[in-house]
Parts: sequence; structure tokens; C-alpha cells
Amino acid sequence: MFRKSFCIAVLVSSLILSIPSLAQDSPASVGATHPELHAVHVFDEKVTIGGLLNIGKSKFGERRLIPITGGTFKGPDIEGVVVPGGADWQLTRPDGDTELNARYTLKTNDGFLIQVVNHVLLHTPKNKDDKAGPYARSVLDFEAPSDSPYDWLNHSIFLGTLTIPQPVPKDNPYVVIGVYRLR
Amino acid sequence: MFRKSFCIAVLVSSLILSIPSLAQDSPASVGATHPELHAVHVFDEKVTIGGLLNIGKSKFGERRLIPITGGTFKGPDIEGVVVPGGADWQLTRPDGDTELNARYTLKTNDGFLIQVVNHVLLHTPKNKDDKAGPYARSVLDFEAPSDSPYDWLNHSIFLGTLTIPQPVPKDNPYVVIGVYRLR
Amino acid sequence: MFRKSFCIAVLVSSLILSIPSLAQDSPASVGATHPELHAVHVFDEKVTIGGLLNIGKSKFGERRLIPITGGTFKGPDIEGVVVPGGADWQLTRPDGDTELNARYTLKTNDGFLIQVVNHVLLHTPKNKDDKAGPYARSVLDFEAPSDSPYDWLNHSIFLGTLTIPQPVPKDNPYVVIGVYRLR
Amino acid sequence: MFRKSFCIAVLVSSLILSIPSLAQDSPASVGATHPELHAVHVFDEKVTIGGLLNIGKSKFGERRLIPITGGTFKGPDIEGVVVPGGADWQLTRPDGDTELNARYTLKTNDGFLIQVVNHVLLHTPKNKDDKAGPYARSVLDFEAPSDSPYDWLNHSIFLGTLTIPQPVPKDNPYVVIGVYRLR
Repeated sequence: MFRKSFCIAVLVSSLILSIPSLAQDSPASVGATHPELHAVHVFDEKVTIGGLLNIGKSKFGERRLIPITGGTFKGPDIEGVVVPGGADWQLTRPDGDTELNARYTLKTNDGFLIQVVNHVLLHTPKNKDDKAGPYARSVLDFEAPSDSPYDWLNHSIFLGTLTIPQPVPKDNPYVVIGVYRLR
Repeated sequence: MFRKSFCIAVLVSSLILSIPSLAQDSPASVGATHPELHAVHVFDEKVTIGGLLNIGKSKFGERRLIPITGGTFKGPDIEGVVVPGGADWQLTRPDGDTELNARYTLKTNDGFLIQVVNHVLLHTPKNKDDKAGPYARSVLDFEAPSDSPYDWLNHSIFLGTLTIPQPVPKDNPYVVIGVYRLR
Repeated sequence: MFRKSFCIAVLVSSLILSIPSLAQDSPASVGATHPELHAVHVFDEKVTIGGLLNIGKSKFGERRLIPITGGTFKGPDIEGVVVPGGADWQLTRPDGDTELNARYTLKTNDGFLIQVVNHVLLHTPKNKDDKAGPYARSVLDFEAPSDSPYDWLNHSIFLGTLTIPQPVPKDNPYVVIGVYRLR
Repeated sequence: MFRKSFCIAVLVSSLILSIPSLAQDSPASVGATHPELHAVHVFDEKVTIGGLLNIGKSKFGERRLIPITGGTFKGPDIEGVVVPGGADWQLTRPDGDTELNARYTLKTNDGFLIQVVNHVLLHTPKNKDDKAGPYARSVLDFEAPSDSPYDWLNHSIFLGTLTIPQPVPKDNPYVVIGVYRLR
């Protein structure tokens, strides 16, 4: 029992020491005021896509995938190309929402490779009372080289938007992904 | 080739039809203006925790877990208790960040059960140039009954904050999780 | 192009050097003879379970969970107890199969903690032509302390069986999990 | 309390009814005899690979990826080609083992598409006492169309071997994956 309490104290103390912003002078109560969350735009990706491959109705719902064939990305602190060869695996769930799970690689102009997993949720409201509204938002996970100028991609949560421009004849189809850092 | 283009058109069209907000009159260009993302506070959880169980250095890094023993949650549209029996599995990665992966269950006051997975990222900057700063943010995934008043939890991305109050002697240790809906 | 070929050669060579059993003198052809796989029994778990918590129909299918309240495990090289506080999260997929995702902790008699994730697939054939038959098999993932006598759990793939004994009145319900190392 | 016991009984009963092989006349005891597990070979894949893309040291360990550029697969009940455009994402963990996570698509000769995730564990023993030995085994997850002749891929656990033939000059590098159904 003593040991248990001690462990908790150690844990809480060490978390407080290492993450000062987590500590509070007085205990928080449920319903207390809460911080505002901000999402800061960091770059946009223009991702070109190939033809739809439709697997069809499978064990988790409707499954299909879209090849990622290339593209570019650009922001104040990062810029480069999308490496061809990724893919966006899509699942329409039994409740009608669609989840995209895209896995691909970015190459920065100064030669670093960055792994990306973009998990998008698409929701279309069925009725007017639907609080969620038409919805296309995502969570992105990056793995960048630790010893590169892009190590900051390893240490935050990133959010995304998805925009699909009107297709232009003879133009490669593409989507635009806005990437934001959650502060 | 014809079939490929057709498939893309069908896909893009169907996405545009089903998610009108995704369509744009003119193609977006990388670097164009981008929407502001908003995170709307929906409820707070006060989660009581048990003693630390330390597995130690293992295949992915330092691994430990903390039992989730109960608690309460409250917001304008939802209120109830945290079901005892969940757990928060923690990994300190080789690069020093800590990821929490908590899995537990909420029970609303009107009797519905909701599954929660809360994936928290804790980062402490090593130097002043670190852009990410002291960081404790999370992505929450809910599975609520589709035919309940809480189906809206199934159709958005949710973000979280984590606050650890100063431990009070003889009080059960707890953490406070702020939950926000990403619009 | 030179660099690309070089990288492949390096990769293949280094894999061959580090994993000698992967290398072959002559190129394998599809349809060639193939090794027999063996699953070696390493221990059994008797896991006591609590009452079912039914979330109901949700975004991926029918969702429910069963608390893991304790138990024991025993094999020639390992023995101990199941730490109370785990849970088995179950999903009945839209195609009728049920997937169990249990997450819990073992404590060995010599005091080490081991994290377990057991992913079980339950399938009941709908017709006689079904090749898969009645099915209850699993893949287990362990995270054991690297500097413990159980580090071998970190370096193999493990498979499982699931048996549910006839419930005995006044006895705690439990399941039996057989654990095998894939050689 | 009554309700809790009832729920357990219902759950256990329904599992026993639906999966007859799970039920036993007498309670199993830990250490009792256990079934032998069999892995039945179902097909081989010959997967051609592109040049290594090295991300380097990142948040979880050493990260790199290898494009999947095509290939063939063949077994008694299934045959076809590997669709170009997949990738094998590799992580060398802090403890030295390497995990491959390959995601790609098969196309059968009769025109069905099948999603594959192949999770490989590579382990090289550091000393002679290492029980695991040189190791290259995997778990494969398939998503096949439910209304295709390949629906059986949705209802079992599948295991794999990995063999890397000696590279032949001017030949495309490839790996051979043996696929087995766990009975």
C-alpha cells in the first residue's frame, strides 16, 4: 500500500516536473474553465491520385483504395514533393461514414524523407438535427528524421482538412490537404 | 484507361455530391488561403487513477500502465460516470516523448455505455528552440450507440487536454481531461 | 539509379547477413516447396471475467466489452497471475464474425509485469461449404521487460486458442487461453 | 447482481451455441492437455521490390520503406498478380528486432481485388541461449470481397514466411512470402 501511494506520487511528481504546464495549484474541478485549443496552419499538400481500385463489400464495410501518384507540398518552414507509391485505403463503415487511411512519403527540398499517415473522417448528415454537419477532417501522424530540421513533426499532434477540386479535363486528378499543428 | 478515368470521375463526383463542402469552383493551389479550424469544448472528465504498474524497458521503449478506477464527466449535452476497469498504457519512446493510450468506458446518466480510446502525446522541449513547447494534447476516439442521443460522438474527430492536479493527501489521485470537438 | 541498386543490394545483403535463414542459394519460385510451420505450446491462462457491458450497435458493428478480473497462468518456463483491471473489447463485424481485443497484464511469480494484447477471431460457418469451419484462434502480442527471463516473449509471434468451460453455479466465470509460440 | 450474472450466462451460452467447439463438458484446468495448432499452406507470393527509401532514426526507432512494384501469387485455390503501388514500412525497434508492415493489393485471375497487410517480425539472436532463434515469421490480414470465391480469407488467421533469394544481376529484386491458414 505504501509502495502503491509512493509510485503514484513519483509518477505524478515526475509528470509535473517534466511537463510544468500540466501542474495546477488547486485541484481542477469538472466543469471548470478550460484552455482554448488552437490549430496553426503549417503547410498544404497537393496530392495527385490514380484510378480507384474497388474491393467492394468486405468484412468491415465497403473497402476501396486510391493510389497516390505524386504531388507537392509547401509551407513557411517546409517544402518538397510527394513520393509516388503511397495509397489511400478507404472504408465506408456500416453506419455510413467513410474513413480514409492514407500512407505515403514526403521528400523535402533539402533531401529528407518523412513518413505520413493521414486518417480522414468523412461524414454527411442524414438530417437537419445532426450536430456534426458535413465533415471532412483528419488526424495526421508524421515520422521525420530526429536529426533533421523537421524533428518538430515528431512532437505534436497534427490535424488536416481535405478539399477535392472540380476535375479539369486532361489534368491529373488531385486533392488538397491542409495540415495544422495542434497547440 | 477509359475505365480508370471514369472511376476517378465517379469517385470524385460521388465525394462531391455526398460532401458538398469538399467541392470548389476553381482548383485549389498549394499555398492558397485555408479554413480556420475550431475546437469546441464538449465536456470534461475527472478520471481517478490507481497505482503505477511498471513493466520497464521493453521492445518499444519504457512501458508502464496506470489503472483507471472510476470518475465522472460532465458537459452541456452529456453527463455521467467513468466505469472502473479501464487502463492507461504508457510508452516512453526512444526519442523521449511519452505516449499514453487509455482505453475505458463512460456510462451516461441515462444509461448508455460509450467506449473511449484516448491517445495522448506528452513532449518536453530539450532546448529553447523547440517549436513544440511543453505539450500535452490528445486525440480521442469514441464508439457510442448509434441509436442513442450520443451518436454525434461517432461522427467527428475529438481532441483533448490533460491536467494533473496537485495531489491532495488522503484524496484519490486523478487527472482532468478536457474534450473538444474538431469542427 | 546506381544509388538505388546499391541500396537494394545493401538492404538485401544486410538482411541476409543478419538473418541467415532468409538467404537461399537459388532463387525461390512461386509454388516451390515451403517450410512447415510449427506452433509450440508455451503456457495456458485461466482468465476470470466480469459481467458483460453492452454498448450495442455502433459505428463499426456490435460493440461490447467484458472486464478481466484476474486469473492465473502456467507453463514450463513461466507462471503467475493475471492482474485484475484488464478488459476484452469485442466487435461483431458487419459480416457476422466477432473479433475480441483483450488488453491486460500478467505478473510472474518472480515479480515481472508483462503486457498482453490478445486479438481473437471467432467465426461460425453459415453453410457446409465454408472452408474455415467453427473457428476461435488468436494472435497475442507481449511486451515483457527486456532484462527479464521473459525477454523471449518480445521476439516471436504467439498464437492462441480460446475455450469457454461450462459455467458452474457460484463459480466465477472464466475462459482458458492456450498460448503457442510460432516457430 | 442478478442482471450481471444473467448477462454472463447469456454471453457464455451464446458463444457456446454459436461456436460449439469452444464448449467443454468439464471445466478446463490450467496445464490441461491442449489442441495442436496446424498451419496449412495456401499460396506463395513472389513480390518485386523497388529501392530502399531510408527515413533514418525517428521517434520509434530506425524507419525505412521499400516500394512494392508488382509480382505474382499462386496456390491451389487462388492465383493472380500483385498490384504495383504497395509499400513495406519497416521499423528497427530500440531492442534491435525489425518489424515490417507491408500494405498492398492482390488481383486474382478472375478479377477480384484483395487488400493485404503483412506484419513481419525479424529477430536475430544475440547469443546461443536465445530461445527464439533466427526468426522471420508474419501475421497476414486479408480483406477480400464477401461475395467472391475468396471470402474464406476474411474468416481465418493467416501466417507467413519470408525468403529473400540471392539477388541475380539485371533481375528485379524480389522476396517470396509463403502464406498459411491457421487451423
